[in-house]
Amino acid sequence: MAGVVLDLDRIRAETPGILAHPESAYLHNAGAALMPRIVLDAQKNHLDLEAEIGGYAAAAREAARLGAVYDSVARLLNAARDEVALVENATVAWQMAFYGLALTFRPGDRILTAQAEYGANYVAMLQAARRSGALIEIIPNAPSGEIDVGALAAMIDGRVKLIAVTWVPTNGGLANPAAAIGRVARAHDIPYLLDACQAVGQMVTDVAALGCDMLSATGRKFLRGPRGSGFLYVRRSFLDRLEPPMIDHHAAPWVARDRYQLRADARRFENWENNYAAQTGLGAAIDYALAIGLDLIEARCKSLARRLREGLGAIAGVKLRDLGNDPSAIVSFSHERIPAHEIVATAGRAGITIGSSDPDTTRLDAEARSLPVLVRASPHYYNSEAEVDRLVDCIATL
Amino acid sequence: MAGVVLDLDRIRAETPGILAHPESAYLHNAGAALMPRIVLDAQKNHLDLEAEIGGYAAAAREAARLGAVYDSVARLLNAARDEVALVENATVAWQMAFYGLALTFRPGDRILTAQAEYGANYVAMLQAARRSGALIEIIPNAPSGEIDVGALAAMIDGRVKLIAVTWVPTNGGLANPAAAIGRVARAHDIPYLLDACQAVGQMVTDVAALGCDMLSATGRKFLRGPRGSGFLYVRRSFLDRLEPPMIDHHAAPWVARDRYQLRADARRFENWENNYAAQTGLGAAIDYALAIGLDLIEARCKSLARRLREGLGAIAGVKLRDLGNDPSAIVSFSHERIPAHEIVATAGRAGITIGSSDPDTTRLDAEARSLPVLVRASPHYYNSEAEVDRLVDCIATL
Repeated sequence: MAGVVLDLDRIRAETPGILAHPESAYLHNAGAALMPRIVLDAQKNHLDLEAEIGGYAAAAREAARLGAVYDSVARLLNAARDEVALVENATVAWQMAFYGLALTFRPGDRILTAQAEYGANYVAMLQAARRSGALIEIIPNAPSGEIDVGALAAMIDGRVKLIAVTWVPTNGGLANPAAAIGRVARAHDIPYLLDACQAVGQMVTDVAALGCDMLSATGRKFLRGPRGSGFLYVRRSFLDRLEPPMIDHHAAPWVARDRYQLRADARRFENWENNYAAQTGLGAAIDYALAIGLDLIEARCKSLARRLREGLGAIAGVKLRDLGNDPSAIVSFSHERIPAHEIVATAGRAGITIGSSDPDTTRLDAEARSLPVLVRASPHYYNSEAEVDRLVDCIATL
Repeated sequence: MAGVVLDLDRIRAETPGILAHPESAYLHNAGAALMPRIVLDAQKNHLDLEAEIGGYAAAAREAARLGAVYDSVARLLNAARDEVALVENATVAWQMAFYGLALTFRPGDRILTAQAEYGANYVAMLQAARRSGALIEIIPNAPSGEIDVGALAAMIDGRVKLIAVTWVPTNGGLANPAAAIGRVARAHDIPYLLDACQAVGQMVTDVAALGCDMLSATGRKFLRGPRGSGFLYVRRSFLDRLEPPMIDHHAAPWVARDRYQLRADARRFENWENNYAAQTGLGAAIDYALAIGLDLIEARCKSLARRLREGLGAIAGVKLRDLGNDPSAIVSFSHERIPAHEIVATAGRAGITIGSSDPDTTRLDAEARSLPVLVRASPHYYNSEAEVDRLVDCIATL
């Protein structure tokens, strides 16, 4: 049901943060995007219902809506609903998959990851490597800055037990060739865990095309969903190869005195108690994005990011830091004189919300490229060209 | 700052669910209690702020309030704020502690737990036992149905690596002698993990008196907080003996290329992203309970539960199922003719919200006592005597 064109006026009118501050420009969608009214209302309505009739009765009354969130995630990913787990955030999603696999690691097993891997994931790999004797190895970059898929293919041997990469790293525009990586993983039947935290909601995300076994994502970023919401996809044919690192009686019903039985579906990675207000908000956010159409969203995100890069690139003293052949809507840069935090603060005083990226969130990449703290500006489809230009003007007058 | 008497009229006027349905009786607090208005509003206000200025700016603006939630939990437990982790729910809290300890289990190590242990915990013990070769052993009950502390003491040897018990089991009034268990644990320096999910908010909870090393709890039950909120307490002196089973860069900052450093405080069991609306609601719920006073709350809970048991006990065909010398506000019973689910439905049609407890949530206890599905009614301090009597009358006319 994607529209043919994106109705920017309507979309902006449906965004409380824009209505409340029409004079501002919110360009921090890689942090947490502005929620559409329907996402806010879904949460508040559910909380009201919980307060009115109690939390269990509210979940029971809204069971159809809550169940439909799995369908929404499945549609978003071109997956099936039994391949979806709803969890608290992208990190929990990633951890449930990664630490599950890590149970099988043996000394000398190889984990392949990327130079720009996210710190949250990398420290987990370090912990698992220490426990198991597995090795972490970095897949080289191509000259574009993307993962070199040929180099990845050349690294494959029988000891490679996991390919775990971040599709869109947190510290810049780079979008790694996730589908090409998937073809290597599929060809060698190597588990492939894709961190799509910064990708979902700004890019078409099709797990069949990506070839991943597991995919983790958050609600709050480009999906414009609630904080404290996320999901994990696990390919149906991969489910039985992946034991949850932790279970409760929802993940694994207690079927006999000394026996539990793991759920057959991906909900084995959930636990029983949930923030249903956040889940209903997540469902509303995904439905909202799907109604616009991820193809249109992706095109507009890239267009606005391109406009921003062109504007910034023309400013003396500004150095763009984005890598890759087809960058995402995350625009990263530094200034030869002015520290990132000062730029963020200056923009804030001008009503422009942007963020920054610290080197230790992507330490390997930051060290390899000698990156300082970067300014990170991330437009979304609901932004106007004028908002992008305001940021360019603000930076130009520093 | 506890009041001398409990102002029931004010408390009921501050409860949206009572105002919306004055003709109803909500006696399902062991499931999820009715939130006070201040808890509901705290969440909705934070969500509004997130929608208005973005999720990161909202957390920054409310940093003091969000930081104070740790102080609130600490006051509730007689702990220090650096001993507190805020997590998604009681199960996650329990899991982060249990699976952390489980990393150290070796074949033949003994885990001591109770007959009425909660299913969520027991399946996790089964999983950990399978992985490690550790053994799960059940501490016998005393004739009262409480854990036999003398028997526990007699079980202790060098292979006991954990005592993990539920203070107030989910399936009835039993309150285990948590502090006496703690004295045994302390005397032998054995890690003691106390599941206080059904205890916090209805009973004075003092970790110094309890002698536990770790305590897990939820927001949504007797604390009257949000769904999807919970916390873990870890004694400061125990922290360095407990590695989190899973980490991210919040739990363990990435300090050098091949090195992370675990946080020094209990927040090593958290992850970076949170549902801050739920956290602020949790803080409001705890502050609300503390302002009333847990001593008054406990006394009133027990008084209403006693009244309910007396009323139900006088009804032919009703069999009370609660154990223990000093039962909690969970009242469990069965009827010789009428299945529990039918009783719950009949009460529901009469405007009375109660719940049920399935045998497989406490399988060992249910098998030992040949329990059917039980009706579970759980009054709270905000309930009136008239509401309790309405349930008694309803059951009497079955």
